Amino acid sequence: MISREECLALDARDELAPLRGEFILDEKEIYLDGNSLGPVTHRARERVLDVVDHQWGEQLVRGWGEGWMAQPLRLGDRIAPLIGANPGEVLVADTLTILLAKLIGGALDLRRERHVILTDVANFHSDLYIVEAMARRAGRPMVVKAIDRNTLASELNREVALVMLTHVDFRSGEALDLARVTQAVHEVGALMLWDFAHSAGAMPLDVTGANVDFAAGCGYKYLNGGPGAPAFVYVRQSFQGVLENPLPGWLGHARPFDFERGYESAKGMQAWVTSSPSVIALAALDGALDVFERTGMAQIRAKSLALTDLFIELVTAQLPGVFEVVTPLEHAHRGSQVALRHPEAYGVIQAMIERDVIGDFRAPDICRFGFAPLYLRFVDVFDAVARLVEVMGARAYRDQKFTIRNAVT
Amino acid sequence: MISREECLALDARDELAPLRGEFILDEKEIYLDGNSLGPVTHRARERVLDVVDHQWGEQLVRGWGEGWMAQPLRLGDRIAPLIGANPGEVLVADTLTILLAKLIGGALDLRRERHVILTDVANFHSDLYIVEAMARRAGRPMVVKAIDRNTLASELNREVALVMLTHVDFRSGEALDLARVTQAVHEVGALMLWDFAHSAGAMPLDVTGANVDFAAGCGYKYLNGGPGAPAFVYVRQSFQGVLENPLPGWLGHARPFDFERGYESAKGMQAWVTSSPSVIALAALDGALDVFERTGMAQIRAKSLALTDLFIELVTAQLPGVFEVVTPLEHAHRGSQVALRHPEAYGVIQAMIERDVIGDFRAPDICRFGFAPLYLRFVDVFDAVARLVEVMGARAYRDQKFTIRNAVT
Repeated sequence: MISREECLALDARDELAPLRGEFILDEKEIYLDGNSLGPVTHRARERVLDVVDHQWGEQLVRGWGEGWMAQPLRLGDRIAPLIGANPGEVLVADTLTILLAKLIGGALDLRRERHVILTDVANFHSDLYIVEAMARRAGRPMVVKAIDRNTLASELNREVALVMLTHVDFRSGEALDLARVTQAVHEVGALMLWDFAHSAGAMPLDVTGANVDFAAGCGYKYLNGGPGAPAFVYVRQSFQGVLENPLPGWLGHARPFDFERGYESAKGMQAWVTSSPSVIALAALDGALDVFERTGMAQIRAKSLALTDLFIELVTAQLPGVFEVVTPLEHAHRGSQVALRHPEAYGVIQAMIERDVIGDFRAPDICRFGFAPLYLRFVDVFDAVARLVEVMGARAYRDQKFTIRNAVT
Repeated sequence: MISREECLALDARDELAPLRGEFILDEKEIYLDGNSLGPVTHRARERVLDVVDHQWGEQLVRGWGEGWMAQPLRLGDRIAPLIGANPGEVLVADTLTILLAKLIGGALDLRRERHVILTDVANFHSDLYIVEAMARRAGRPMVVKAIDRNTLASELNREVALVMLTHVDFRSGEALDLARVTQAVHEVGALMLWDFAHSAGAMPLDVTGANVDFAAGCGYKYLNGGPGAPAFVYVRQSFQGVLENPLPGWLGHARPFDFERGYESAKGMQAWVTSSPSVIALAALDGALDVFERTGMAQIRAKSLALTDLFIELVTAQLPGVFEVVTPLEHAHRGSQVALRHPEAYGVIQAMIERDVIGDFRAPDICRFGFAPLYLRFVDVFDAVARLVEVMGARAYRDQKFTIRNAVT
């Protein structure tokens, strides 16, 4: 079995190792929760201070003319290469659930003759709530079917208007086949909406190659944009000017400063801004994106798989039969996290946190560990498993009390 | 006529004068645009840094358990007294237009037998766009009538589901009678939604006394929460649990951490959170609200009226016949801004900006000057008018080129 020294040697050869220095981390902690909230980067901190002190502070209202207006599109263009999109196909604004609402509303308007929406019963809950809510406002009776995603092929037919899936399951870490699923959906003439919350920034996503129609994703997980960071929305070029933002606002108007009474959509992705997201929040995300320019998604993915492989290998070898590894072993089906099932999952995570290894619990029985390749080391994985062995040996998971602090997405 | 020395004397006796020290201001500038974007306060800056360095930076995902979850309601409770609301009736989230979308959608669901929405043709454009958009998703044919607000009485009847008005007109600065209009709307059984973008933080708003049903307002104007700050939403206690958020998300669920498949609304205002607004943006607004605890809305209003009175008096005396004062002279009908009509309004504002007096232009012919009592001095008003006299005398408004920087709400 691999030794701690061998892990240190892997770190010494790791091309991504220098990027850890971009992050502000507590060196005594092993942070395996970047899939919930990414850490602060020096650049994010600098950018926030620059906005407060020099933009908001000095330019005041003139900041709008000095670049604030362009931020949602500019940040979208920075995210585009991470998901395989072209410039002008991505925009940053609002929160993920609000962006999903916009995309669902717009998509249902494009398939007026169809009345079924398919989604995954294991989808993130907010996705399930918003798809139901937008279905009720489609202007015709709709049926939302929350299915077992493995049965998707048998549910697809010409009644289906829209399929909405999350690319990487937030609990299990299973990654779906973007191209294959999208193609199957297109074959029945339905539209495909992907939620990239647990994929963007952790693995390459070829939305262009996979012919994805629409997608949205989270700014605060692997993109490290800060708590509650604005989210991003992708609309394929060929749908721009076709798919309409159902929650229009003045900043998405063709001529926002003419203050016209009637709404006329701006061209391109600008139409997806309703009113301005926080400029300070955008600045944090902007700074956080800098680190992605120092590497590529292929390298990030390679290290992600190496880290999760190592974790699974160590857990399986050192704690045989203790956990069920829920996350798929096949690389093609794995996101950037490992989910371990255990009846005392909650207590395990709490005991790990007491030992400075931060993962999280997903009810009822999942220990979830996220592996963010930009700042995690192979030795962190080794040490985390050593502490897990300690926790399981001492049965330190008993009598842990439930608190809110370990229960967030 | 009042002299500069007399203005300095007014400042010396001004109870609010010490509050200017809370703001980070460029001392060479006279900022009459706080109705577009309020300036940075020391507290906002400190709070942002605290979140970045100590909350996001050190607590990481555990910050959710340490107070982030409670921020939307806690900040709402801080805004409540500024608008005459009770604790638990206000929440901070999203942007103003998104919050209006939620309120309009929810309100139309409560008046299913009615098909007319009334709004003001002079309303802010984003309000007009979103009311049209939500009317199209009401589940029945609706008619949106954008009327001259002075004809409201004759348009009110039992077909009207909802009336949506902005309390202070963003162009003219005219303030409507909150209690009287709300009562007239209630008399025909319609619901009343107010937009407080240009009122909150500048004048007392007695939503309880006026029996207001729903309202939303802006965080970045007189509340000084920073560019694109999250907005606030008010729902009267008696409508909580009755009016439903049509854009539900997991953070508005009764048990957000149980990850349930079906949506069950949280009790009270928490239901109006969809997913989390930026914690950094919330921190800026939180810090900005501190200054309001050092005074009261009655004092703020008294100074606001004194400042706008002084401005109108000086302009009228020193530039007789040059401008039409569009803002009502009666205190009861005046917001916290003065709008002056002039055919060369754009050039006037540009020439004033060159002279370090920041106001803004509203097409086609309005010079708009906002008077934020927390940091403006009487001598600022005196000096601003002196520079206006200079601009008009030298005809410095000629040949000013249009740029975006002076065209934002």
